[in-house]
Amino acid sequence: MLITLMTDFGLADTYVGQMKGVIQTIAPQADVIDLTHSVPPQDILAGALMLDAAIDSFPPDTIHVGVVDPGVGSARAAIAIEAQNCIFIGPDNGLFSVALSRRPMMRAVRLENWRYFRHPVSHTFHGRDIFAPVAAHLSRGVPLAEMGPVMSRIVTLDIARPQRLEDDSLKLTVLRIDGFGNAITNFMHRDYEHYMAGQPDSQAIITLGPDRRINGIHHTYADVDPGEPVAYFGSSDRLEIAIRNASAASVYGIKQGQTFIFRRK
Amino acid sequence: MLITLMTDFGLADTYVGQMKGVIQTIAPQADVIDLTHSVPPQDILAGALMLDAAIDSFPPDTIHVGVVDPGVGSARAAIAIEAQNCIFIGPDNGLFSVALSRRPMMRAVRLENWRYFRHPVSHTFHGRDIFAPVAAHLSRGVPLAEMGPVMSRIVTLDIARPQRLEDDSLKLTVLRIDGFGNAITNFMHRDYEHYMAGQPDSQAIITLGPDRRINGIHHTYADVDPGEPVAYFGSSDRLEIAIRNASAASVYGIKQGQTFIFRRK
Amino acid sequence: MLITLMTDFGLADTYVGQMKGVIQTIAPQADVIDLTHSVPPQDILAGALMLDAAIDSFPPDTIHVGVVDPGVGSARAAIAIEAQNCIFIGPDNGLFSVALSRRPMMRAVRLENWRYFRHPVSHTFHGRDIFAPVAAHLSRGVPLAEMGPVMSRIVTLDIARPQRLEDDSLKLTVLRIDGFGNAITNFMHRDYEHYMAGQPDSQAIITLGPDRRINGIHHTYADVDPGEPVAYFGSSDRLEIAIRNASAASVYGIKQGQTFIFRRK
Repeated sequence: MLITLMTDFGLADTYVGQMKGVIQTIAPQADVIDLTHSVPPQDILAGALMLDAAIDSFPPDTIHVGVVDPGVGSARAAIAIEAQNCIFIGPDNGLFSVALSRRPMMRAVRLENWRYFRHPVSHTFHGRDIFAPVAAHLSRGVPLAEMGPVMSRIVTLDIARPQRLEDDSLKLTVLRIDGFGNAITNFMHRDYEHYMAGQPDSQAIITLGPDRRINGIHHTYADVDPGEPVAYFGSSDRLEIAIRNASAASVYGIKQGQTFIFRRK
Repeated sequence: MLITLMTDFGLADTYVGQMKGVIQTIAPQADVIDLTHSVPPQDILAGALMLDAAIDSFPPDTIHVGVVDPGVGSARAAIAIEAQNCIFIGPDNGLFSVALSRRPMMRAVRLENWRYFRHPVSHTFHGRDIFAPVAAHLSRGVPLAEMGPVMSRIVTLDIARPQRLEDDSLKLTVLRIDGFGNAITNFMHRDYEHYMAGQPDSQAIITLGPDRRINGIHHTYADVDPGEPVAYFGSSDRLEIAIRNASAASVYGIKQGQTFIFRRK
Repeated sequence: MLITLMTDFGLADTYVGQMKGVIQTIAPQADVIDLTHSVPPQDILAGALMLDAAIDSFPPDTIHVGVVDPGVGSARAAIAIEAQNCIFIGPDNGLFSVALSRRPMMRAVRLENWRYFRHPVSHTFHGRDIFAPVAAHLSRGVPLAEMGPVMSRIVTLDIARPQRLEDDSLKLTVLRIDGFGNAITNFMHRDYEHYMAGQPDSQAIITLGPDRRINGIHHTYADVDPGEPVAYFGSSDRLEIAIRNASAASVYGIKQGQTFIFRRK
């Protein structure tokens, strides 16, 4: 059984290694894959988007452990969620809600059964003492229902949707800046196809600022010259604004939460 | 059999990958877990503390390879140490001495049997050519005694202990700054309990400087407001000084080796 | 079967994790090892050198996936190459040519059989949708010839060779700067032995600039005092210029492509 780990711990310390040690102690046969440990610190939305973009690459029944957890040690619940094709384990703070917006949730339980925790449970490191051991026990076939009581609802992030303006243009929002400085937006490819209604990609116009427009949607940054801006649907199916061989975030000063206008000619 | 790797090599080059390739060549069934490869360069004390904090998360008989090795290529010995629950492999420079201060050492041998090395042995990369292959052979059941002659003593780091002053307060020392900028001290939780003698956590006072005091010990940084300082016993059971959502090292200028006063009201 | 991954993706996002998920989906028994994901962005030569230096540490039949791919989405071919002891998979842009200069190439095929790709194939992420799944299928025993038509020649990098000057000295070139700031040159140990013709290492003189010379070749940086320059043959068998405990690239301003003079007394 496959277990993935995504955290904001970084790799400067041994925290991720400790989680893997706990998993191996309980479930020596488990395979563990790092999604990333560089989620921007405490940025639950970024983590939720990164997880959503990644999990389609994994086999059915994969267990995804996510730890972006500013509330560790506080009253926030610890949860395990059975979705159609996978299981999520982590804090109940919205970290899984983007992924669940596209995948039916079958069941969620509150992690309360201390029998499946590592002891003593540290107040600052539930990743090691709760989430990792619960993932390991689930991978060995312990039923989800053993872990604690069913929860009827979980915390959901409120994510901006593209907004249609009076002139029929769209107001898009930058959801996160990735590691290359590309701006990843809230515009999904299926919504784009619907909006364009069969018009060619070249008819799209993105207005980033008074003097800055991008004309047309391309397939990849290699379609433009180095240093030129480009808009394309990235590997996560969201519209991305980039500069070939440079950081759009640095050059244009694009920030998370910023909006801009998308329209067709 | 599980093998862990901890080095100061970073991940910018292929050095860690090469060590894993050597292990897989000799012991295809071994599972390898990275503790971290971001030990501050040549900082043996930091590596020793990180290793000590991490190894309780691993199953019995795990083999821990540690390479923080400013003396590679010089006369320092290469060693393998059998402790009560695990094996350590690396340079004889004190890297394992913090872990061994809390775990009985059964036997240490000097790695001299070239039969278990990779050849030719590079002068600069014993991690790949000595420590990794020896770990792999041990994981396959080759006896420790095969590796070389028994050593009666190994190099031990001299680590500052909390010092009781005339007014019954304690002088603590910062042993290292972690990746989040938290200051990790030489005050263990069991020594704290002994010193407090049943008084509540709220009675503790930490004096960082003329105008800077922390009152009380908390369970986690989430117990204080963002930007506020906090002291707690971290996942390694040592007292840590932190600022919620910030770097105590940057904001307060705390450095490795710095001392401060701990007392009860 | 072992699969290694080397990319310039970094670890800030989930791209590497996604590649591993795709491999596990197709070939659950495959073992995957990271060579490094910190190849300088789009620096094909650095990637080619890093790969060449790393692969001797791996067992026969290892599959090496390399993705340093400025032309992703353009007309550059995707290839799989069977060499004497291993298989290379990645873009046809020279990334494997340094390794192949020292190892016979048996066969190369152009990856065109969509049956072994992940669908839909992203224009920006062939690592996940072409190279990873092809590696996974090959590791399960699918024949190379299934992947596409044989290619008679592949792209080869043109790498400067040491140049013998009229006074019998050599002009060497810095091929890359490694993560520690060491300058790695185009001077291989076997060529050095040939040039020195039995003279001792102490007779070598390296002239870095008008007032900067290094006398003699050492075994390792530990042979000189901290802060002193040193030249030695590193773990990749190339002459390296370093400063003990410092970055030669920063202190001396050494850059990729720079040349200097090597001679014997």
